[in-house]
Order: sequence, then structure tokens, then C-alpha cells
Amino acid sequence: MNHPAAPASIMRAALPAGLLDALQRLYGERLSVAEAVRAHHGRDESAFVPHLPDAVVFAEQTSEVSETLRLCNQYQIPVIPFGVGSSLEGHILALHGGVSIDLSRMNRILSIDPEDLIATVEPGVTRKQLNEALRDTGLFFPIDPGADASLGGMCATRASGTNAVRYGSMRENVLGLKVVLADGRVIPTGTRARKSSAGYDLTRLFVGSEGTLGVITEATVRLHPQPEAVSAASCSFPSMVDAVKAVIQTIQLGVPIARVEFVDALAVRSLNRHSHLNLKEAPQLFFEFHGTPSGVEEQVQTVAQIAADHHGESFEWASRPEDRSRLWTARHNAYFAMLQLKPGCRAITTDVCVPISRLAECIAGTEHDLASSPLPCPIVGHVGDGNFHVAILVDPAKPEEYEEAERLNHLIVRRALALGGTCTGEHGVGLHKIGFMREEHGEDALDVMRAIKHALDPANLLNPGKMFSLQRETS
Amino acid sequence: MNHPAAPASIMRAALPAGLLDALQRLYGERLSVAEAVRAHHGRDESAFVPHLPDAVVFAEQTSEVSETLRLCNQYQIPVIPFGVGSSLEGHILALHGGVSIDLSRMNRILSIDPEDLIATVEPGVTRKQLNEALRDTGLFFPIDPGADASLGGMCATRASGTNAVRYGSMRENVLGLKVVLADGRVIPTGTRARKSSAGYDLTRLFVGSEGTLGVITEATVRLHPQPEAVSAASCSFPSMVDAVKAVIQTIQLGVPIARVEFVDALAVRSLNRHSHLNLKEAPQLFFEFHGTPSGVEEQVQTVAQIAADHHGESFEWASRPEDRSRLWTARHNAYFAMLQLKPGCRAITTDVCVPISRLAECIAGTEHDLASSPLPCPIVGHVGDGNFHVAILVDPAKPEEYEEAERLNHLIVRRALALGGTCTGEHGVGLHKIGFMREEHGEDALDVMRAIKHALDPANLLNPGKMFSLQRETS
Repeated sequence: MNHPAAPASIMRAALPAGLLDALQRLYGERLSVAEAVRAHHGRDESAFVPHLPDAVVFAEQTSEVSETLRLCNQYQIPVIPFGVGSSLEGHILALHGGVSIDLSRMNRILSIDPEDLIATVEPGVTRKQLNEALRDTGLFFPIDPGADASLGGMCATRASGTNAVRYGSMRENVLGLKVVLADGRVIPTGTRARKSSAGYDLTRLFVGSEGTLGVITEATVRLHPQPEAVSAASCSFPSMVDAVKAVIQTIQLGVPIARVEFVDALAVRSLNRHSHLNLKEAPQLFFEFHGTPSGVEEQVQTVAQIAADHHGESFEWASRPEDRSRLWTARHNAYFAMLQLKPGCRAITTDVCVPISRLAECIAGTEHDLASSPLPCPIVGHVGDGNFHVAILVDPAKPEEYEEAERLNHLIVRRALALGGTCTGEHGVGLHKIGFMREEHGEDALDVMRAIKHALDPANLLNPGKMFSLQRETS
Repeated sequence: MNHPAAPASIMRAALPAGLLDALQRLYGERLSVAEAVRAHHGRDESAFVPHLPDAVVFAEQTSEVSETLRLCNQYQIPVIPFGVGSSLEGHILALHGGVSIDLSRMNRILSIDPEDLIATVEPGVTRKQLNEALRDTGLFFPIDPGADASLGGMCATRASGTNAVRYGSMRENVLGLKVVLADGRVIPTGTRARKSSAGYDLTRLFVGSEGTLGVITEATVRLHPQPEAVSAASCSFPSMVDAVKAVIQTIQLGVPIARVEFVDALAVRSLNRHSHLNLKEAPQLFFEFHGTPSGVEEQVQTVAQIAADHHGESFEWASRPEDRSRLWTARHNAYFAMLQLKPGCRAITTDVCVPISRLAECIAGTEHDLASSPLPCPIVGHVGDGNFHVAILVDPAKPEEYEEAERLNHLIVRRALALGGTCTGEHGVGLHKIGFMREEHGEDALDVMRAIKHALDPANLLNPGKMFSLQRETS
């Protein structure tokens, strides 16, 4: 594999013997330098060429993470936190080698407080694991990226998902963190109170920092009452523009819709095949409504009218829990379903998010660009947030397809930025979006990010090479 | 006045002539060194002894703020941003002299985008001014501190108010900012998209930074659809604990209540007098419900049942818009109403916020402390968030009353911190809460804040002396 956007391979020495010895004493058999383990920790779901760490440690408690960072700081060796490896933008590649801290064994749910609607978890707890544990409490945790990601990783990338239109993203749903700093010190951020004006918002600073400012070893997250009633439906539209306009009107009317997902005709085909559905292969919206029985009924009537006004064909109801589950499981597996449109392919995924008033224009322009490309490019989107993904399917053996994918990616991102949007709504920057940070933020705002990075990680040991260039571009 | 907690007066020279000349050229008659103008800008609504700036400039555009910061950086002179002066914790006192930048003339509403539910405003726009401008759009801006504060000041203190239980605080309702940095550079933060994972969350870093990291000269805020139906009511309870338990259950059931305010018997008396109401002088809850007509009806029935289960006496409905307005205007004027309980007094206001499960315990302990104090101490609270205020009324001529107020304040804050809460839910730290920052965050987390402050304001010129001590305490 030879992704054109992959960084040049970097020459480096192996870990210093003193560090390796110290880690060996700390972790025993939970330290690995085996090629297979390092390979597993040197890649994610992106199409980037893997970059292997020199060693992998499997941490089981904060004190081990702290000691690891202290040691790596002493020896000036990079550290990369690793959750389940489901990131999409090259976040966990060990560009400069170093130590990958696998946090998947820190998967204890430390407390669930139904009275306060919060839970405190270790970073390796996955979203499904948390919701399983919550099942009998009447509460749930809404943030649902496609993968069964770890909560630590979801904090680190400021993840969201299909429910964000109603419940917000990780930005809104993390109350506080425990973070290990570059020198090994451990700090709490935030309190258990719902709001605070006591100082800089360190919680929000670490949420979305992609392992470049510290390693998250605990998160206190907000829970929400399970809705009394839930209803779901799909509806096809003659065109993407009709579908998106229906969404825009729904949002503008303040309908508290829980989910509204766009799936284009090609993506619908992939879902039909992968999940044995029988949906019309046309632009579709998937809806979910949460509330009291009468509240849901009211939302449904409003949205059905809006859909009809925009030429929606009749709703397909998924009323029984198993039908709802089938629809939304299919949607969650869309990434893997889309990959199967082209056997053996990998996906280059775009993740732009624009103000909702510009969404139809943004997707229409994108569709125009894609139409002339030889690559299959299904589109799915959290359209209530103005966020959509194009999965550009490339043959890993064909460099020219990577080139074409990057050409399309640039067109899509540039358009979104021109429309007042962002290069990434929820996947994060990682390696793949670094090139757009200047255009989105400007060099002066990036300088502020650089100053913060330098203040908290002066030796650039925490997940180095990600998110933005440490050097100001002068041109 | 001689507030015991007031910082020692600091000896300093007047502004350098070169700086004064440059500011004179920049601002002409919009520069003032008049005693009365400086006095107005050297105090807020707190009981602190005023500290006057050496000069006040009335900025009208970002470029002037930028040039002012560049000049003050060149001459190493402090800068304090000033909105309307309604802060409660000594935020805008010019402890080290310097230049107060009055932003109240930057009060243009730059854009209202109903399709995207956002507005972009200059920092001097007040919340009432914005809502006035929104009146015909079907939208509103929910954050409502008691005072008619400026949006810039509300960003700077991470303000909230009575609606936060449903709509969130400034943390959730600011999409992006324009900020002037210490050296005069101007950066944007955020985009117009609803969510983003593109880099560090600079918006949330500047929201709540109290003028210590930069000067906010534009804010893009989220708007919300005006609810189709609104209903309001008050309900008295035999005890505070009954009232608070009713609130806890309401929140835990997920009722999307728009406002739920606690007012204790003494505060009710002040509202009755000040606003000519006729409420029973007992612990009261004020409610407001937003939604569709049937949704509101459903919320009302649920909450009425919960109130009855907790010995609530019958709801007093404020169904007509003018009755609702009367009730909520009274609540918004509570601060001034409470001041009139003791003619000539000033208020030392507490602002703790705790996890809602601990709220009844926290207020009960607080009431116990207050019962033995000679000072009148009415309590009001945004109890849906776990946040409440005690207005400790002191005679400015009596230093022993300040001492007593601070003694009570310490008891109240320490209890809230012990219960997992914060020293300030919405007013900010300013001068008054500095002493609690170590206990709330720990020295290591404060070190992170210090590192950020140093990175962005190395000479400590931006609102110096506020929020936290720059020196680590070693004991």
C-alpha cells in the first residue's frame, strides 16, 4: 500500500535499553515488542501505510500510564495512546516510533450515578459496553460513532454520531476527565456539577486533542433518560436536494428529532446487500423520534408533513424494536457495507460539516464532482448537524486511485470551508486533515494551538506529527 | 468601604506619555482619563473596593482593540476589557491600573441567520438587545443572567441563567468567536458549522477566560426556535427539601423543563415587596414549560404530579403572557429586590453548583449555617442545574459584616466542593473565588491553566490578578 498522502518514513533508533528495562519491570508480560502486536498498534481504519511503535504496553491503571509518561519524558521517547484502533484519519500511527499505550484493558465502569445522570468510566470502556451496563437503569449514553469505539478515543477525537442532532457530541457530553500530563502528573478536569465557571475549560481542551496534550485515563460522561417512546422510519426522496431540504425545515422548526440520517442511492444499495434490507435505491432519510408517546406521535406527524411537502415517498415504519434495531444496525454498519461495494478496497472517508443552510448546496456540488470520477463514492450523512461522509473506495494496489481520492477529498473540503464549514465534523484531524488546518483556522489561530501544545508538551512527545504542523508556514 | 477580601492597593506610575499619545491619536475624544469615567470602569456589582484604570478607551471596532493591545504590549501596560460592568466577582477591577477597553459601543448585530439558527454580534450587544432584534424571526437567545449583561461579558464569564437547565450555558451556545490576542493579532475560533473536530477547542478555551487570554470582539451564538406554547407557574412547598426533591425527580425523569427556579421564603418576601407580587412567603419553585401545546400540557401534568407527591401546594398559574412576564421579570430582578431587604446594603453573592443528587443536602447545610448568622441571607437558585445563590447582605460601613459574610461564603463553598461541586456555577472567579481554585482543581491542574496563560499572555498584561495565582503554592 502506498497512500500518496502518507508521511515519509522516518529513520530512528530503537528504544533505549534503560527505558525498555524500566517498562519491562513495570508491565512484565504486558509489554510487547512482537512484530504482530506492534503492527496491530501501528495502523487504524484509515488507508495510511502503517507506522509501528517500538513497543506496546497494556496499561491497567492510571498510575502505570503516569509512570510510563514519566519514563518516556525522561528518555524523550514518543507516546501514542491506543483505544480500539477504530479511528479513521491515521490518529494512532507511530510516525516517530515510541511507545503505544494500549488502554483497552482499562475497561472498568467505575460508577454509574442514575440520580445525577452521569457515569465515570475508564478509557477502554466501549460505547456498547457502557450501554449494556446501563440497560436496567432507564438511562443511556447517546454518542454512537459507527464503530464500537472506546470512550477514551471518542473523547480524544470529539466524536459524535447519529444522535448528536438531539443529544450533542462528546463536546457536550463529557463532564470531566482524569488526564496524565506529558511529565507523568495526573490532573482532574471539571467536577461532577453540570456547569461551572471556575477557570479555563480544561475538559473541553482535552476533548478533541487527539492524544497530543495528555493521556485520558478516566471520563465522567452525561447520561440521558431512555425515551418512553421511540419510533423510527425511512423515507425515500426523488432527489438529495428534496431530502436535505426536508431536514433543514425539520431543524428550523425545532422538532426535537433524535436522529435524521441521509443515505444516498449507492449507499442504500450497499446496506440492502450487506444487511438484507429491501429499501428503494434512491436518496433516503432514516428518522428516529424519542419522547413521550404523544410527543413522538406529534413529531412524526410534523415530519411526515414536511417530508410530503418535499416529495418524500411514503414512510416505511420500523415500529417493532427488532425492525428499528435492524434499520439502525444497518446504518451503523454502513462503513463496512460500503467497503463491500468494491471487493478488496479501502475507503478514504471525508467528514465535512457545514452550516445547515448550505448543506444542500454542499452535497450537490460534491455529487457533481463525484459524478465524473471513476471511483464508487457512496454518501451517508448526519444531516441534522450539516455533517456528511463520502466513502471514496480505492483499490489499495492502484496509486492512481489514491491520487484520485485525494483530488476529490480536496475539492470536497475546500467547498465546505468556502461555505463556512469545517474539514472534520467528528472524525478528527489525525494525519489526513493536517493540510486543511491552515485554511480553516489561519496561521494565527494555529499559532495559539501551537503555543498550547508547546506549553503542555514542550518536547513534542505526545502523539507527535498529528493535528497540525508545529512550524508556522510563512508564505 | 473596606472589604476585607479586597487586594492591597498597588503603587504604580501613570501611563507612559508615548502610550497616552498613541491612544489619543487612535481614539480622540473616545479616550478618557477623567476621574468619573475611570471610577465607573474600576468597579462592578461586587462589594470590592474600586481599583481605577489609568485610562478608558471606547472602542468601536476590532482594529482599534487590536491596535490598543499592540500598543499596551509594546509599553507593557495592563488591559482590562469592560462590557456593562454587571459582573459580580470583581472581574473588571484594574488592580494594576492600565487601560480599560470599554466595548459597549461595539454593539452592532452583525448578522442573524434564521436558517442556521445563529447570530453574530459584537461584544457590547446585550442579551435584551439581541432578543429584541430577534423578536420577529421566531427565534430567541436563551441565556439570561439577571442583569442585562453584554454578550462579550457573558462569553468571558461562561454565564448561564434560568434557561440553562434546558438550553445550556454559554459553553453550549457559542459557536465561534473573534478574539484579539495579547500582541494585537486577531484570530477567529470555530466555524459556522454546528460541530467540528478540527483541532483544539479554542472557542471553549476563551469562553470563561474572563479577559485573561484575549479580548473577544465578536461572538457567533446559537439561537433557538421560540416555543409554540409556553406555560409558567409557581408552587409553594412546606420545606426547601420538598421543593428540591421535586426538582431532582423532574430532571431524572427527563422532563424537558425550560426553567425551574427555587426561591426561599425570605427571597419571596423581597420579590413580593419589590415587584408587587402576592406569593406565599414559603419556599417556592417557579416553573416554565416550552413546547407544542400538547407537549406543554403533558409536562405540566407530570410536574404537577411530582410537586403534589412532594407536598407542593397548588400551582399558581401564570397563563397570560403578561402574568408570565411579571413572574419572570420579578425573578430577574431578584438581586435588586433582595438588596432592598436591608436599605443601603451590598450583597456578597455565593454561586456554588453541585451534582443534583447532593443539592438538597447542600442547601440544607447552607441553611443551617445561615440560621445562626445575624445577616439576612435570601437564597435563590437555578436548581435544575444544581446551582444556587445566597445573597449575604452586608452594611458597607461595618467591616465585621464583611468578615461574617466571608465566613459564611467559605462554609458554603467548602461544603459544595466536598459534595463534588464547583465554587462558581456561572458568575466566574474574578477576584472573589481565587482562594478556592486550588481546592477545587488542585495545584497540578492550576499549573496547566498557568501554562496556558503564560503561553498566550507571557507578560501577564490581560486582566492581571484575576482567576488564579500565577505562582504555584508549595505548601
